[in-house]
Amino acid sequence: MPRSRSKSASSCGHDPSRADEVENLGFARVDLSRKRRQGVPEVVYGAGKTAEQISGILDSLRRHGQLPAIVTRVDAGKAAAVSGTLGPEFVYFPEARFGRLGAAKAPNGHGCVVVAAAGTSDLPVAEEAALTAETLGNEVVRLYDVGVAGLHRLLACKGDLERASVVVAVAGMEGALASVVGGLVDCPVVAVPTSVGYGASFGGLSALLSMLNSCAAGVSVVNIDNGFGAGFLAHRINHMGLRK
Amino acid sequence: MPRSRSKSASSCGHDPSRADEVENLGFARVDLSRKRRQGVPEVVYGAGKTAEQISGILDSLRRHGQLPAIVTRVDAGKAAAVSGTLGPEFVYFPEARFGRLGAAKAPNGHGCVVVAAAGTSDLPVAEEAALTAETLGNEVVRLYDVGVAGLHRLLACKGDLERASVVVAVAGMEGALASVVGGLVDCPVVAVPTSVGYGASFGGLSALLSMLNSCAAGVSVVNIDNGFGAGFLAHRINHMGLRK
Amino acid sequence: MPRSRSKSASSCGHDPSRADEVENLGFARVDLSRKRRQGVPEVVYGAGKTAEQISGILDSLRRHGQLPAIVTRVDAGKAAAVSGTLGPEFVYFPEARFGRLGAAKAPNGHGCVVVAAAGTSDLPVAEEAALTAETLGNEVVRLYDVGVAGLHRLLACKGDLERASVVVAVAGMEGALASVVGGLVDCPVVAVPTSVGYGASFGGLSALLSMLNSCAAGVSVVNIDNGFGAGFLAHRINHMGLRK
Amino acid sequence: MPRSRSKSASSCGHDPSRADEVENLGFARVDLSRKRRQGVPEVVYGAGKTAEQISGILDSLRRHGQLPAIVTRVDAGKAAAVSGTLGPEFVYFPEARFGRLGAAKAPNGHGCVVVAAAGTSDLPVAEEAALTAETLGNEVVRLYDVGVAGLHRLLACKGDLERASVVVAVAGMEGALASVVGGLVDCPVVAVPTSVGYGASFGGLSALLSMLNSCAAGVSVVNIDNGFGAGFLAHRINHMGLRK
Amino acid sequence: MPRSRSKSASSCGHDPSRADEVENLGFARVDLSRKRRQGVPEVVYGAGKTAEQISGILDSLRRHGQLPAIVTRVDAGKAAAVSGTLGPEFVYFPEARFGRLGAAKAPNGHGCVVVAAAGTSDLPVAEEAALTAETLGNEVVRLYDVGVAGLHRLLACKGDLERASVVVAVAGMEGALASVVGGLVDCPVVAVPTSVGYGASFGGLSALLSMLNSCAAGVSVVNIDNGFGAGFLAHRINHMGLRK
Amino acid sequence: MPRSRSKSASSCGHDPSRADEVENLGFARVDLSRKRRQGVPEVVYGAGKTAEQISGILDSLRRHGQLPAIVTRVDAGKAAAVSGTLGPEFVYFPEARFGRLGAAKAPNGHGCVVVAAAGTSDLPVAEEAALTAETLGNEVVRLYDVGVAGLHRLLACKGDLERASVVVAVAGMEGALASVVGGLVDCPVVAVPTSVGYGASFGGLSALLSMLNSCAAGVSVVNIDNGFGAGFLAHRINHMGLRK
Amino acid sequence: MPRSRSKSASSCGHDPSRADEVENLGFARVDLSRKRRQGVPEVVYGAGKTAEQISGILDSLRRHGQLPAIVTRVDAGKAAAVSGTLGPEFVYFPEARFGRLGAAKAPNGHGCVVVAAAGTSDLPVAEEAALTAETLGNEVVRLYDVGVAGLHRLLACKGDLERASVVVAVAGMEGALASVVGGLVDCPVVAVPTSVGYGASFGGLSALLSMLNSCAAGVSVVNIDNGFGAGFLAHRINHMGLRK
Amino acid sequence: MPRSRSKSASSCGHDPSRADEVENLGFARVDLSRKRRQGVPEVVYGAGKTAEQISGILDSLRRHGQLPAIVTRVDAGKAAAVSGTLGPEFVYFPEARFGRLGAAKAPNGHGCVVVAAAGTSDLPVAEEAALTAETLGNEVVRLYDVGVAGLHRLLACKGDLERASVVVAVAGMEGALASVVGGLVDCPVVAVPTSVGYGASFGGLSALLSMLNSCAAGVSVVNIDNGFGAGFLAHRINHMGLRK
Repeated sequence: MPRSRSKSASSCGHDPSRADEVENLGFARVDLSRKRRQGVPEVVYGAGKTAEQISGILDSLRRHGQLPAIVTRVDAGKAAAVSGTLGPEFVYFPEARFGRLGAAKAPNGHGCVVVAAAGTSDLPVAEEAALTAETLGNEVVRLYDVGVAGLHRLLACKGDLERASVVVAVAGMEGALASVVGGLVDCPVVAVPTSVGYGASFGGLSALLSMLNSCAAGVSVVNIDNGFGAGFLAHRINHMGLRK
Repeated sequence: MPRSRSKSASSCGHDPSRADEVENLGFARVDLSRKRRQGVPEVVYGAGKTAEQISGILDSLRRHGQLPAIVTRVDAGKAAAVSGTLGPEFVYFPEARFGRLGAAKAPNGHGCVVVAAAGTSDLPVAEEAALTAETLGNEVVRLYDVGVAGLHRLLACKGDLERASVVVAVAGMEGALASVVGGLVDCPVVAVPTSVGYGASFGGLSALLSMLNSCAAGVSVVNIDNGFGAGFLAHRINHMGLRK
Repeated sequence: MPRSRSKSASSCGHDPSRADEVENLGFARVDLSRKRRQGVPEVVYGAGKTAEQISGILDSLRRHGQLPAIVTRVDAGKAAAVSGTLGPEFVYFPEARFGRLGAAKAPNGHGCVVVAAAGTSDLPVAEEAALTAETLGNEVVRLYDVGVAGLHRLLACKGDLERASVVVAVAGMEGALASVVGGLVDCPVVAVPTSVGYGASFGGLSALLSMLNSCAAGVSVVNIDNGFGAGFLAHRINHMGLRK
Repeated sequence: MPRSRSKSASSCGHDPSRADEVENLGFARVDLSRKRRQGVPEVVYGAGKTAEQISGILDSLRRHGQLPAIVTRVDAGKAAAVSGTLGPEFVYFPEARFGRLGAAKAPNGHGCVVVAAAGTSDLPVAEEAALTAETLGNEVVRLYDVGVAGLHRLLACKGDLERASVVVAVAGMEGALASVVGGLVDCPVVAVPTSVGYGASFGGLSALLSMLNSCAAGVSVVNIDNGFGAGFLAHRINHMGLRK
Repeated sequence: MPRSRSKSASSCGHDPSRADEVENLGFARVDLSRKRRQGVPEVVYGAGKTAEQISGILDSLRRHGQLPAIVTRVDAGKAAAVSGTLGPEFVYFPEARFGRLGAAKAPNGHGCVVVAAAGTSDLPVAEEAALTAETLGNEVVRLYDVGVAGLHRLLACKGDLERASVVVAVAGMEGALASVVGGLVDCPVVAVPTSVGYGASFGGLSALLSMLNSCAAGVSVVNIDNGFGAGFLAHRINHMGLRK
Repeated sequence: MPRSRSKSASSCGHDPSRADEVENLGFARVDLSRKRRQGVPEVVYGAGKTAEQISGILDSLRRHGQLPAIVTRVDAGKAAAVSGTLGPEFVYFPEARFGRLGAAKAPNGHGCVVVAAAGTSDLPVAEEAALTAETLGNEVVRLYDVGVAGLHRLLACKGDLERASVVVAVAGMEGALASVVGGLVDCPVVAVPTSVGYGASFGGLSALLSMLNSCAAGVSVVNIDNGFGAGFLAHRINHMGLRK
Repeated sequence: MPRSRSKSASSCGHDPSRADEVENLGFARVDLSRKRRQGVPEVVYGAGKTAEQISGILDSLRRHGQLPAIVTRVDAGKAAAVSGTLGPEFVYFPEARFGRLGAAKAPNGHGCVVVAAAGTSDLPVAEEAALTAETLGNEVVRLYDVGVAGLHRLLACKGDLERASVVVAVAGMEGALASVVGGLVDCPVVAVPTSVGYGASFGGLSALLSMLNSCAAGVSVVNIDNGFGAGFLAHRINHMGLRK
Repeated sequence: MPRSRSKSASSCGHDPSRADEVENLGFARVDLSRKRRQGVPEVVYGAGKTAEQISGILDSLRRHGQLPAIVTRVDAGKAAAVSGTLGPEFVYFPEARFGRLGAAKAPNGHGCVVVAAAGTSDLPVAEEAALTAETLGNEVVRLYDVGVAGLHRLLACKGDLERASVVVAVAGMEGALASVVGGLVDCPVVAVPTSVGYGASFGGLSALLSMLNSCAAGVSVVNIDNGFGAGFLAHRINHMGLRK
């Protein structure tokens, strides 16, 4: 059977003064000014990309000094292929489906980022948040399995919560953890609804709506299962006024 | 303009042995065996009924010894008209939009019914639950404005919660109260989502989903704003094994 | 490929006087005071946990005298592995995907728990409810395939329904069983919508909404397919005033 | 302020052989062949039309011998104006917000159309169905307030149900009436969900989904509150094989 | 690993005078009076049942003279097993996933049932409707691939449509076929939305809503993909006044 | 009571070379380069703006030669006030709630824009589309009340449809008009769902989904009730290759 | 007509050592330790509260030194009544429906809070955010009417955006402002969807989903129209590491 | 096991003068007048069709001179089988799951069609649009990975955008690309939401709603992932006034 591939994306006539800011790989335009513009290199969303595409983008970032680089939502099979291409500088965390190229930065924020997760099933998302924050230079304290149905487990950790600069609250099902934590602390709370649950959790919708309707002030919400987004934002908040 | 009314509902040829169990008022078939069959007379849902219809049904219940009778979701205007027709035996509670014909029964359940409400705006629903339970013969303890964003307010009431036979947990917005209460008590919790909130509360959907997904065992849920249903069920549970 | 695991959850500095109430397994904080606080040990939600995690938690409960212990939503493969680890004290019920460690308690409630299911496809959920209630010390009567499209099948069981202390009504599709049963009995009805159906059942949403809107008083609802929650609540109601 | 109206709809160059089949009033093209093509004249949907528009269309139908003509969803104010214009041949039924121009046809179908309604609040929709069927030439039996929470009320009417050629089942809230009736009769059941209810009834969605998921065969569904559509369809079914 | 099965459903103490009307197989109560009560034997919904359960129920129906019996939503593997058990009297139609035990009845209705389907992908649902109607004793005319985007294909079949006693209109995507057919015929139209489509068809929701909102009178709707329900209802309508 | 207004929006330090392109009125930044950049001046969305704000923006556009200017969704009261301020150059079309400042441009497109509307209730939206296109320089042909339930009304207008450069298809309820028109013409069809309907039309959702799922190629969709957007896009398409 | 009020909420037996932390007004338990615990006094949600209740709570806060106190979602009528009770220390901002008791704190954060709003109709929500942040001690820069359809208006404000410590991005309709801003800045972005729009904006759902799905890192979301929540969170972030 | 196939669709008695316009293959009625009526042959929707059905339809089109013919949503396996049947004239593009029988037409439109895609994961949909437009005779410029989070990548392509006759904007997640592009160009924009994303993208719903609510004029929307529809419409627009 004859097969022909579609033409690759044409290069558009962009401003030459910006030519060094983007590397056009055909399937992706790698943003090489992200670290300068926003303090953190472009992050690779691994879902829907091949191992070759992931390796290509990470390699481009490494060649242009944009490390440490992060890839999220990459399964173990692709990670092995990426690791084979990029060598030992690429480290993979299977539970969080998270890969890192280059060493994590040393913690240099205001204080620690607490990642609190309601149940054991929420750990993959919680770990994605924790690893993201650690990679970008934050001390992370993990409080796992502290769901509100056994409130004493959470209250026993009050000391950790009070030392936090930011809390990332990760929960599925009814997502009540964000509101309860929000009432206990005086720092920003980044709520991450997860798709953990069944039936009327509707893939995380229940937890998402709960968190958006939190009666505790200081709580904001990211997308369902978006551990990366929460860890990234926690990093930004924890470095408020410290960036240069 | 000529106006003609549609014919009233034809009477159907039902079993004469049951003739005394239903009074057919044309617009309603009053269920006169409900008290015998289910321990509690038929309750009148006032929304969408005229004052005349409400008075007619209540009067039918009174004539057949089905007191105390309850009417819910009746606004002040209709209540005044009903009161004019039925006399002082009809008592109206405006905050809960709740009317009662006949005296409340003396408390004779296992213990007390605790009605806990998250915020001031949830009071109308909470009062509907409390008045229903009181009317049917239950001691009611009210714990209002104990939302989880100020957890110490709820924890300060732990003694009341531990003495409860049943807890009715009333909350809008994120509805987290049901889960937190569910984790503190060892009795059934009837959760009532309310339509209090805005935006992504979607008319109570957020609280409803939260409560259905509660990770605390022993929690069940009634319809949004259904204070009556929760009070009625609390009554049933509180009289478990005591009915005759 | 180099792989590294994320750090395990740090232990938080909790109150030493409560140290014996929680066993921190890293991936889970086993709640060892649940039986004392709430009358029933912590129940293990098997979905999203490995066989090792399940075995670990059950073993912790056994070592601390928290039997009989329940695990729900565990498939046959994991159950075999758990059984291999824990020995013959672990019993598995494949239709309900339900495991029990330790013997069921002898029935000691007010009366019997009736579990009524609309169709053959609802049996796995109904069995989860029935086994939960039996494990916790309740006589259970099963009425299966009594959907309302053949009403005489349900009416033929009226005697069983009238003897019930609590009815668990399990139905998918239009979920009408809960309302019809609710009108026939004078005890609490716990309604369990199931995801049985297709098209506009939307994964159980249709049955869920039906049950929440039941015009029969005394009906409350748990999450879609949550047989465990219904069985647990039925147990609580059936032991109202009998706990010590 | 200068005001100018938009131009009226241009007439399009349609086939002259069909010119007599449509009267173009500018705001409406009155379908004058509907009675010939489909046995029943065009029906006027009154919502969103002015009294003048309604009168104009009805008058056009009268002038072309398309009586009896029906207008639905017309409030009392508009109806008075229409009546003033068209004279005593126009009859208005306020509860159903239904108007009729010309006398109802004599019943000439296979048998009777039973209109069963669950609650008092469902009467406006039920009456719209009943009046539609009566207007088009059907004997109608009304069974009102026969909701399933008091099943004996419905079972007492079993004789009427068994004599039906078609049953129109009208219910809001959980909409269980359609399934229960569907299991009792051997004729077609046209189910009409109503917007009666609150909270999780979501404006009739709950009843609609219930009816669509009915496990009783022979049930089909029309739009929420569409009493007209159900009455019209019941007419068609009741005249199956009798039209000429 | 020790495995124990849950107890089978207890038999309930039903009225002996009805004992012959139900055969209790444990997992199912076969309704043996359905043919007498409703003219058609109980139909087996094959999804979620094992081949053994299906064979058991069909065999029970055969032993009690309830043929022809229908089983829907049965895949080819189960059908082969059922066929092995029940012998050549069981016939399977793979495209419609439809099985029949016993011969179809001879057509004896008012006229023919037209099954019109919008696209090739709608055929499995259309065939389920057609086979159901044929089995129950109806002449069926199939008009396939007559979607409204090529209106001349539908208009070319106007003769068939005008001869119909009932039309079953099967369509996914925008479901416009039901409205267009409804405007062309003067007989009842049973609309079947299908889950054919992608994106904003949301599993058939788009077609379902379209059909419910049809501005053509005489159209009613069954559940998404419910070819059986439509075929069954078409049969009832086509035999209006002819049953005995 | 002391009242204080919040500070007005600060001016931001924008590039002086663009200073003449925006007039900052405090509550609005009037885009004065829109006509140059996009061929059509900024259009004022009247909902949620006061008469003063509307007049202010229109006046700014007039002062900068950006006529004819359009304001949509403006009720009659505000329109009168605007007219009082701006004088007779402002013309108001009440049915469409549409205002125009300055004369409509002479038609100069490829051909005519046909605006087809399914029912009388859809006219306000259809007129908004028609007036927008006329204002911007297009000949508009209006085909109203051509819904698909009376297909011959639409087919009678086939000549108009075939002469169209673009068709704007406006329909509520089931929205089938777009698909049927899409199958009849060989030009682009812009579909406008309207909120006309009740029950399961869910405020236009039904028509919206229908139109998005149209099986006719060449159909695209704008927001519910967005007559303006459709008229504007029709203008662009009708001037394809003619702009300068 | 006899009217009786329901009993007020019983006081629960809370820990005397905490007695001074809550003032129980019957309808509300005023949290007097909020300022100490969380740095900001309890904020009054005015919707659903009477002017008397609002005045009572604010007065309680003033008596206990919990100023400046904020009340949100209070209409002009109630505000006038509150002002009459509390005197000139209460200031009302009608556009934002926002009241303040006591003077705003002097700005003492890291930098400025930029509040960017897409359109004129979004101003009430934007002002609620801006006033909240100003009250709590933040310099606020307002960038209004900078929606992405006229991108040059936003790009002209790049200087302001780059100086921000936090950006609050307020937008209805498609909510694209949050993503575009998120790509331009290197500080946290708090996105506020508004209910501005019509049709498929579904009361703000469209903007909410857009913002949750933002592909720009560093963006988190609060409830629809929750200007207060965004302003409060912006305050917390802007004071990161500065609180004592 | 005996198997019997259902009867094939009966041929309906259509007008002989149209007999040559449709080839009835039993499973499909191939529309042979589509090219004459609408300028483009019927397009084959490959999902849900077998390779045999696809080959049959394509072959019918080839025999009747309806080339180039397009088949969409065909996986690689089916494509290989089709290729084996039809020979080298059939070309397959695996990324877009797109097949073409016959050579693409030479570009003959007003100008070029720009296909802009937000991210790498959107490429399959973008390619479907691009290949469709190329096949039908349009020059296509591809701008890929130009999502708004890195706005400079899009702005760098402004030259390409300004030369476009039509822009097809393809994006998942928040779908902001359509609005931003809509504000930059003065030609029609066809927006294609994609199902790329997770969590609250709800399978493309988020992008769909964003695009429908675009505040940029000139934007219309097709179904989620409907690259073909967008490419086809772009072709029509690009040939406005040029067809014969």
